[in-house]
Amino acid sequence: MAVGIIMAGGKGERLWPLSRRSKPKQFLEIGGKSFLRRTVERVLPLFGWENLYCVIPEEFRELVLAEVPEIPERNLVIEPMGKNTAPCIGLAALAVSQRNPEEVMVVLPADHLLGEEERFREVLRFGMELAQEEWLVTLGIVPRSPHTGYGYIRGGEVFRKSPHFLALRALGFHEKPTFEVAQQYLAEGNYYWNSGMFCFRADVILGELSQHAPEIFKGLAALRQDFDNQTLREAVFARFPSVSIDYAVMEKSARILLVPVDIPWSDVGSFPALSQALGVDSWGNTVSGKYLGVDTRGCLFITRKPLFSLGVEDLVLIEAEDLIFVTTKKESEGVKRLLEVIKEREDFKGYL
Amino acid sequence: MAVGIIMAGGKGERLWPLSRRSKPKQFLEIGGKSFLRRTVERVLPLFGWENLYCVIPEEFRELVLAEVPEIPERNLVIEPMGKNTAPCIGLAALAVSQRNPEEVMVVLPADHLLGEEERFREVLRFGMELAQEEWLVTLGIVPRSPHTGYGYIRGGEVFRKSPHFLALRALGFHEKPTFEVAQQYLAEGNYYWNSGMFCFRADVILGELSQHAPEIFKGLAALRQDFDNQTLREAVFARFPSVSIDYAVMEKSARILLVPVDIPWSDVGSFPALSQALGVDSWGNTVSGKYLGVDTRGCLFITRKPLFSLGVEDLVLIEAEDLIFVTTKKESEGVKRLLEVIKEREDFKGYL
Repeated sequence: MAVGIIMAGGKGERLWPLSRRSKPKQFLEIGGKSFLRRTVERVLPLFGWENLYCVIPEEFRELVLAEVPEIPERNLVIEPMGKNTAPCIGLAALAVSQRNPEEVMVVLPADHLLGEEERFREVLRFGMELAQEEWLVTLGIVPRSPHTGYGYIRGGEVFRKSPHFLALRALGFHEKPTFEVAQQYLAEGNYYWNSGMFCFRADVILGELSQHAPEIFKGLAALRQDFDNQTLREAVFARFPSVSIDYAVMEKSARILLVPVDIPWSDVGSFPALSQALGVDSWGNTVSGKYLGVDTRGCLFITRKPLFSLGVEDLVLIEAEDLIFVTTKKESEGVKRLLEVIKEREDFKGYL
Repeated sequence: MAVGIIMAGGKGERLWPLSRRSKPKQFLEIGGKSFLRRTVERVLPLFGWENLYCVIPEEFRELVLAEVPEIPERNLVIEPMGKNTAPCIGLAALAVSQRNPEEVMVVLPADHLLGEEERFREVLRFGMELAQEEWLVTLGIVPRSPHTGYGYIRGGEVFRKSPHFLALRALGFHEKPTFEVAQQYLAEGNYYWNSGMFCFRADVILGELSQHAPEIFKGLAALRQDFDNQTLREAVFARFPSVSIDYAVMEKSARILLVPVDIPWSDVGSFPALSQALGVDSWGNTVSGKYLGVDTRGCLFITRKPLFSLGVEDLVLIEAEDLIFVTTKKESEGVKRLLEVIKEREDFKGYL
């Protein structure tokens, strides 16, 4: 047996204003179904509802229960505040330990899209086997382009072969590269996109945290004896550093295996990526809603009112219920710059 | 005495979707007041309400009475259909003739903007004097740029001097020129923008129509004896050619005087012109409504919802009650191309 841990506490600002503070990216519908719902349904055959956990802040409780009402409410693990993935995964490991310390956890972000779902479940089964043997397994996506928005993991010698998959020694975790470096990674051929998806046993990840991130482990240990004490949990989280599991454990541990998988995958972390995920027409446009355009190419238009366009290219135009946002595909990657300005403006803050 | 004739029957498609079939440009508010209201108030001191006429199709009656309720309803001259300015002015001349055939008419489009209004009234007074002497007076605007969106009139020898104005012989009417030709006109210095504003006596313009546009005059003559018969008027208009007063009379008559005037003037016939008319901020943007932008230059944004922009330039974004339109300033000049496509689409026609 194993459990699925869905990390659904992210802010997803890069798709603002499609995602909002009150309704981040994982709750966004894409093709009629939210990222979160897709993530859950994708792995449901592996775990069943009883073994699916969601890690979220309290304010997302209703959103999660609206999207996936089948999930047992006791499986909602409440993060008092966002402190990146290491505290999040540590807390989940504690929650799982309450039932079975040796339980294998499959940790998944709630806001990615991927194809070939049966193949994906197959690779997770392989990862879970390795995790059972006390390895920390990280899934690496075979890169299809020199993407500069992802981290990369370098694969080393083959540790294990299954009929369909390999497990490699992980030789290094690399932050988002420049375009030139990413091209080099692809040319070398043994680099994989860091998908942020992991398999490990609860006791193993906690052991690794105790070794490589003692300040986080210490906090978690304080929570162990009184797991449902939310005041304590909040005090502990307040003192946690904000640090990723990659930085806290993966880059340091000797027990890491990399399992590459060649499936279509995207974190949909930008408007161009969203366009691709939603699909483009023969003019390169992605349009949701009533639309008539002349000489319009490569645009992403998501509007409520009927939209008319004339002679525009690579534009992004989003009409939310309460605002309109216009940018270009290229500039849209810098939407956080705009959000920084909004945060400073008392009269606009409400639109975050 | 004289009368003001406001031609307010235009469709004003070039500013779609700010102007719509149901509410064309002349009814559009700019700086809190419609073009029509501005046009009327500008010449009210010359004529008074009793002597202001509006030529419109029946469907604009309520719009006109809402904008200028002070105008006597009997002064609304109803065009059964749009046939360009020659039939429109001919019909107005007939209407004026009912009161006084020798009345001087000052003919004004309802959808232009201009500055220095007192000076403008002064030049009209000068024009009215000349019109009293049976001249057809056309106002020429001293051009401030080699504008390719206006017709030009070539001025000849001086016919009359007033303390502030000149009347020149008109040597020729020229259609919208290419940029190179327009530059040449400005270099030569004796070319003026054709403002579409005229002064002439009712009997004089009717006489000129009889000479140079007999098919129009014949129709008007048929209406004269039964001026209020709308069925007859419709039948007559149906047979009229669609022809401008420039083409029908001005280019052919020997009685034309050109009175140049150096005032800010615009027919606001494009989105860039509208931007200029409304004024631009230090980033070159014209914005109406709640707005926050980063790296945004030279744009025209007229929206109802708060608008956010990032990294866009020379964009035009209009949010109407029922639709959104996006284009660039350059492409916006071709909005009629888009409207042609809309006209052919049963599911979009309602947005014209």
